[in-house]
Amino acid sequence: MKGLSSGDSALQKVRAAKEALTHVESNMLVGLGSGSTAHYAIEALGDLLERGELTDIAGVPTSEASGALARKRGIPLIDLPAGGVDVAIDGIDEITPELDAIKGLGGALTREKMVAASASMLILIGDASKAVDRLGMKAPIPVEILPFGWRRTQTDLEALGCRPRLRQVAEQTFLTDNGNYILDCFVSPPIDAVQLACALALQPGVVEHGLFLGMAQLAYIATAETVRTYRKGERR
Amino acid sequence: MKGLSSGDSALQKVRAAKEALTHVESNMLVGLGSGSTAHYAIEALGDLLERGELTDIAGVPTSEASGALARKRGIPLIDLPAGGVDVAIDGIDEITPELDAIKGLGGALTREKMVAASASMLILIGDASKAVDRLGMKAPIPVEILPFGWRRTQTDLEALGCRPRLRQVAEQTFLTDNGNYILDCFVSPPIDAVQLACALALQPGVVEHGLFLGMAQLAYIATAETVRTYRKGERR
Repeated sequence: MKGLSSGDSALQKVRAAKEALTHVESNMLVGLGSGSTAHYAIEALGDLLERGELTDIAGVPTSEASGALARKRGIPLIDLPAGGVDVAIDGIDEITPELDAIKGLGGALTREKMVAASASMLILIGDASKAVDRLGMKAPIPVEILPFGWRRTQTDLEALGCRPRLRQVAEQTFLTDNGNYILDCFVSPPIDAVQLACALALQPGVVEHGLFLGMAQLAYIATAETVRTYRKGERR
Repeated sequence: MKGLSSGDSALQKVRAAKEALTHVESNMLVGLGSGSTAHYAIEALGDLLERGELTDIAGVPTSEASGALARKRGIPLIDLPAGGVDVAIDGIDEITPELDAIKGLGGALTREKMVAASASMLILIGDASKAVDRLGMKAPIPVEILPFGWRRTQTDLEALGCRPRLRQVAEQTFLTDNGNYILDCFVSPPIDAVQLACALALQPGVVEHGLFLGMAQLAYIATAETVRTYRKGERR
């Protein structure tokens, strides 16, 4: 970890990722998240396989980028099977102590949610900057939408109390791995996240949204000093 | 209407379509449905424009096929705008007297639902064979899903009590205009359609489903003798 100080966000992400990897055993099917923190988990999983500390692992990647990294690190990959995965490890954009999270700034939220929902155990990981008391304090809620009729969908999301902004990258409309658009929906906390999640799901034109409410069993959030553990159903 | 007898399903569809067209006025933006009955409505709209009985109409097509037909008939087309459409006219696969419908055997359900939801007035049309007492009696519920992880999604829909079958056409997996798959979900009536619609909407991997519950203001269902009118909120 040359060049990383303990207050460094990258080092925190690595430590959270390694904590999550302690739940992976040989013969497991592992959901591979997307984004910088999840990539540290893929790297660490590659290391464990390389050293023979884990064997007979297969991964289900949640993005083209994670798939490419996993292949590079020698992790065998399969499509998401009917039975789901044993454990999924993924990063977050925001997380509350109740394990409610926002994901999708990387744009892979739909595949991430499908793999997460299929997992016997979902572990979320992140550095201290992702910990919030209320969702929407720092990050917008990314919503994947169909390109068809997107202006109407934007109007409908405004009616739900969001401030949606079509994601652009280098002056081009961002396309997800599924070929869709992202509306980054800014909100003013406190929000009723369950109600908003339901309204977004029911909205025609919405493929998926970045609210991951109560889906994870565990989260590891690394601070400068330690790695905090959030457990589902445990009050803090 | 040479060659059509009054008991003919095609003639019934034409009569229902013409009834729906009486609600279209000049300067309106019209949602153009998909499938055989909606195509009769597009033809009839083209006739009205050609004869100058309607002017300054624009259409929003719900499928590539409907767009192609509308262009051929000289109907100006635009993308679904933020303000939605004035009136949408579309066919159904099944409809109850309460105006709950199943749509999507043509595979265009998602765009159809987006345009229908945006309409100030939605009019559903069909021949007598589409009238049912309970949804799911004749038609499966088409569900548009992402190709990614489709086997898992199929398993999840089975858990909701459906019998999902991946749609194949000429031994190829059918692709929607959005590039997705369709699971045709067979059910055993009576079903709790509202609960199923909500569960389908909340399911990761599901883009949209073919249950159109209470969305329409009007339906015209043509029988051999007459055209029946179903009105929202009117008990029969």
